[in-house]
Amino acid sequence: MLIREIPDYPLPGIRFQDVTPLLANGPAFASVIEALKPLADQCDAIAGIEARGFIFAAALAHGLGIGFIPIRKAGKLPFHTFEEGYGLEYGSDVLQIHQDALEMGSKVLLLDDVLATGGTAIAASKLIERLGSTIAATAFVIEISELQGRANLRQACPNMSINSLFAL
Amino acid sequence: MLIREIPDYPLPGIRFQDVTPLLANGPAFASVIEALKPLADQCDAIAGIEARGFIFAAALAHGLGIGFIPIRKAGKLPFHTFEEGYGLEYGSDVLQIHQDALEMGSKVLLLDDVLATGGTAIAASKLIERLGSTIAATAFVIEISELQGRANLRQACPNMSINSLFAL
Repeated sequence: MLIREIPDYPLPGIRFQDVTPLLANGPAFASVIEALKPLADQCDAIAGIEARGFIFAAALAHGLGIGFIPIRKAGKLPFHTFEEGYGLEYGSDVLQIHQDALEMGSKVLLLDDVLATGGTAIAASKLIERLGSTIAATAFVIEISELQGRANLRQACPNMSINSLFAL
Repeated sequence: MLIREIPDYPLPGIRFQDVTPLLANGPAFASVIEALKPLADQCDAIAGIEARGFIFAAALAHGLGIGFIPIRKAGKLPFHTFEEGYGLEYGSDVLQIHQDALEMGSKVLLLDDVLATGGTAIAASKLIERLGSTIAATAFVIEISELQGRANLRQACPNMSINSLFAL
């Protein structure tokens, strides 16, 4: 089982998708990164959302020889930042990006491990647009279909390509 | 400037080493990962410490085609964990690893972005040893020499190879 479901984590009623067995399996991890590569066609950078998004986004950026841009929780980036609040499946939070993270006009693939309600990805997309860059596509390893993240993301960002490798 | 110093972050008197310009530069990021590869010779997995350690460790694991093992702050791993407390340059914290993260007898490269006092790496090393695995080597992108992390790490783990790419 490369993706295992953990019931009632982090809160009762949440069925958490644990990707650590996939990450620990070298060939499986490599095949996920290979499957993501075509989505980053003509991108200048891969943006990853803290913390599990960092894992896939950094590996993909390295695999393509392009840069990695971290989007972090509040207070974790040391230089001047922009920030966006968002709601998520359990609670709410704030994401930040460095104001000088991208050259103006960059094309970015936004990558995260899971698409749930889409709130995180919407906030991250706004941050990238505030830097004068474009999200060429979003990609997720896992999409939890019942949480309607794809519809929410499409409504917030109508022209953005939305991709997932595994749908639950 | 690929690594920039941020004065008084996160606390007064701390000179934070910001690697985000390096990460955003595809060729520079790739060259760091290439420089780390020989240190993982004959390793079965790369362990990375949350959150910046994830970035380098995931890219290196992917570059070598082996598995990535996350070592996380308390409460972030969803399955059964072991944990170790540690002091760090500013404050103290707890690290956790999944109890089934590694097969018994695995050889692991432990990777983090910065070696400061060594407290984080010592805690992470203990966690890997509790799983019945061995740290073949530790590696850091940046070593802050004045904080004596190398000496602390050598005292705690006498036979471990300690490596850094840039020393300040």
